[in-house]
Amino acid sequence: MKWDDIGSLNCSIARSLALIGDRWTLLLLRNAFLGTRRFDDFQSQLGVTRHVLAERLKRLVEADILNKEAYQPNRYEYRLTTKGRALYPVLLALTAWGDAFLDEGAGPPIHYHHKSCGKTMTPTMSCSECGEAIHPRDVMPMIGPGYVAEKKFG
Amino acid sequence: MKWDDIGSLNCSIARSLALIGDRWTLLLLRNAFLGTRRFDDFQSQLGVTRHVLAERLKRLVEADILNKEAYQPNRYEYRLTTKGRALYPVLLALTAWGDAFLDEGAGPPIHYHHKSCGKTMTPTMSCSECGEAIHPRDVMPMIGPGYVAEKKFG
Repeated sequence: MKWDDIGSLNCSIARSLALIGDRWTLLLLRNAFLGTRRFDDFQSQLGVTRHVLAERLKRLVEADILNKEAYQPNRYEYRLTTKGRALYPVLLALTAWGDAFLDEGAGPPIHYHHKSCGKTMTPTMSCSECGEAIHPRDVMPMIGPGYVAEKKFG
Repeated sequence: MKWDDIGSLNCSIARSLALIGDRWTLLLLRNAFLGTRRFDDFQSQLGVTRHVLAERLKRLVEADILNKEAYQPNRYEYRLTTKGRALYPVLLALTAWGDAFLDEGAGPPIHYHHKSCGKTMTPTMSCSECGEAIHPRDVMPMIGPGYVAEKKFG
């Protein structure tokens, strides 16, 4: 199976990964959340080649994750759309896991201050209904309205 | 910058992506959460080449995300470790985003039933302190104990 086919699979994880499941893309989005908007800033912050960066930005604009806006004639900024901002939990989940398991004993590089409640927080994936933290064994996947049977991807 | 260098950066997202920021790896982990344990099952479910699969499994074992256990002489199973199970929020975040934005109007392919409370849930990234859903504008990153100044990656 090729990656171009993955996005057509009947699975929201596979569809998401077909768009953003690439390390440069996710780092680029991280910097967008930190406020970066211009090509040259992304390039210098990430140390990625201009060719790769241009390709990733183009894909994100096509996917309606970033919006490309002229701020001067022929000068553009890339801003997160509503769909792009909705990726924040993906980045928080990656952060929380790295903080918990990859800090080499030094503690997290960055703390997250929750302005709404005034405390330093750990992003926690919780149930929308009861508010409890979600553990894998407490979850049962069930067939939903958008399910279509497929041969692969049990 | 090369990908092998990214894991040494002073950022939990970059460190996480250096280990798991690869689409096959994340799909492989998805199937591990769904109960897949054996090489041939991963291979047939994912349609990935044996070479790529072997390389990804080896990396995940080296990173202590999967544990390789013999269930017969020379026959192995791959099971999620504690560190691996802690990646569940990353997959739920990808799922929730795909369900919200990539369902093509058909509704989510899979519903998630939360056994603890008995309801169908939407995985929601919440503040560990106040329990509210986290929005990007409510979060202020602050320097934590593991921070080390670097030239790149503002």
